[in-house]
Amino acid sequence: MILSSKQDLLDARARISHIVHRTPVLTSSTLNEMTGAEVFLKCENFQRMGAYKMRGASHALSRLSDEQLAKGVVTHSSGNFAQAIALAARIKGVKAVIVMPENAPAVKVEAVRGYGAEIIFSGPRPIDREEAVHAVINERGMTFIHPSNDLQVILGNSSCTQELLEEIPGLDIIIAPVGGGGLLAGTALAAYWFSPSTQVWAAEPSNVDDAYRSLQSGKIETNERADTIADGLRTNLGDINFPIIHELVSKVLLVSEEEIISAMWWVWERMKIIIEPSSAVAVAAVIRYQDQLKGKRVGIIISGGNADVRALAARS
Amino acid sequence: MILSSKQDLLDARARISHIVHRTPVLTSSTLNEMTGAEVFLKCENFQRMGAYKMRGASHALSRLSDEQLAKGVVTHSSGNFAQAIALAARIKGVKAVIVMPENAPAVKVEAVRGYGAEIIFSGPRPIDREEAVHAVINERGMTFIHPSNDLQVILGNSSCTQELLEEIPGLDIIIAPVGGGGLLAGTALAAYWFSPSTQVWAAEPSNVDDAYRSLQSGKIETNERADTIADGLRTNLGDINFPIIHELVSKVLLVSEEEIISAMWWVWERMKIIIEPSSAVAVAAVIRYQDQLKGKRVGIIISGGNADVRALAARS
Repeated sequence: MILSSKQDLLDARARISHIVHRTPVLTSSTLNEMTGAEVFLKCENFQRMGAYKMRGASHALSRLSDEQLAKGVVTHSSGNFAQAIALAARIKGVKAVIVMPENAPAVKVEAVRGYGAEIIFSGPRPIDREEAVHAVINERGMTFIHPSNDLQVILGNSSCTQELLEEIPGLDIIIAPVGGGGLLAGTALAAYWFSPSTQVWAAEPSNVDDAYRSLQSGKIETNERADTIADGLRTNLGDINFPIIHELVSKVLLVSEEEIISAMWWVWERMKIIIEPSSAVAVAAVIRYQDQLKGKRVGIIISGGNADVRALAARS
Repeated sequence: MILSSKQDLLDARARISHIVHRTPVLTSSTLNEMTGAEVFLKCENFQRMGAYKMRGASHALSRLSDEQLAKGVVTHSSGNFAQAIALAARIKGVKAVIVMPENAPAVKVEAVRGYGAEIIFSGPRPIDREEAVHAVINERGMTFIHPSNDLQVILGNSSCTQELLEEIPGLDIIIAPVGGGGLLAGTALAAYWFSPSTQVWAAEPSNVDDAYRSLQSGKIETNERADTIADGLRTNLGDINFPIIHELVSKVLLVSEEEIISAMWWVWERMKIIIEPSSAVAVAAVIRYQDQLKGKRVGIIISGGNADVRALAARS
């Protein structure tokens, strides 16, 4: 396979630098003491709309032709990518249609609507949303942007780790959560080009361990179940991001639901920042696999902060 | 009255700079749009033990003689100052006794114990805790450090606003929550010496409006009630901090319980940081009194982040 060039990554970062926030890197002496590692949290929960997805979405839009922009963009997502496309499109003055399942939480629907995007509801099955997307493409000529399996989205996402490596040089390992693979692929590309000695590891809930199995089998595996609190990580890898991940990611660390919830609360209560369950997966991995991390400089990508605090507090 | 000198404030900051964190200043474009002001949040929720109290406590300890240190320190608090003295004493290798009401929440007792301090339980009335403190002083020769009505505590607290003014020059107004008055007095002294054109305002729950009434009457007023969610602000002003506050603080802004809770959730969910209810009082004031703040550069002291997220989520 041919990996994107270093210049591709630099260009992607430059194209979105006026749109996205440069997010802070936080540390916790308690976390360092607990794990024996020196841990750096790249806090995309402070990103615009609350997640790293803003990077890939705004970069993908920046690559469209005037003709494409005139017709607008469409995606399917019930989560952060829906908000990211909606906000990125609003900033660019472009129409956006988001296909969301009809059982999506009202709060997420409202957030997308708040950014001015049009919402089309579909049935809950993957085939339902794909039919809805195709109808929009055919009838309105809009450009489809996939939330994770799109090279421009991946390149946009790479800007997060470019910033991290610039601020904290000499990381031994970077750990990112893996769901659809768009963040992990971008993280891996950035480490490959800007810090070749840095390994990239993934963190994944045991309940949806498709990436773990995919890295072992060498082909894209799928999940039979979706029962994880980390709602951003229920999706499978794609044919664009998997080759990058297969080539550049060293390992996938699995964590239990209990470990995810415990790590999330620990970060909320001790570090005083709200992270979403998907991000807690990476923190949980650092805590559980500390034996492999002792004495190392470890970056964690805190992917977002769009957690439903009331609901999560009620269930724990 | 004679205010502490600029050198006193500089000395205080220097004496504790190796112990306390220099906390970040955060902004929110949404908050700026909402209020029409340019708002800067000085985030003491990221301070060690989670609150600005660490500053005053460690400075007070730094001023004790070797003889005093050998005998240890005692204070009464069921809140952040208990943890602050416990941690500051542990760092200095000094014995600390914390008098806590026997009905203090178990989680706070555990936090203090976790820092290695000895806890003595007293009855719930002020007289009970004072008797307990006096017994410790008389029997063990320990030095009493008051949580807010102590000049060295106030000078330590002033370091927070010294940092803020250094990082964000030209603030028109700084708003700090007021309870016992130790933070407000330190904030006012720092603004007086380092940015004379900056006004200092206080924010206070309407339900415990003793500072508001004190500033009007010119003498220390007390509260008949203590029914506010801002548990750090139920106390009254003292004879050391009130003259400073009376001289240097322009006004006190009152906010309702509903406004406090709403501001707290807004910051949690939109800014992705955990702030405690007492800090939300200052955010609520900026939102409610935005007419007075339009076009101004406004600093807010986010005093701490030791919120019981589960309990607060359950009641709202």
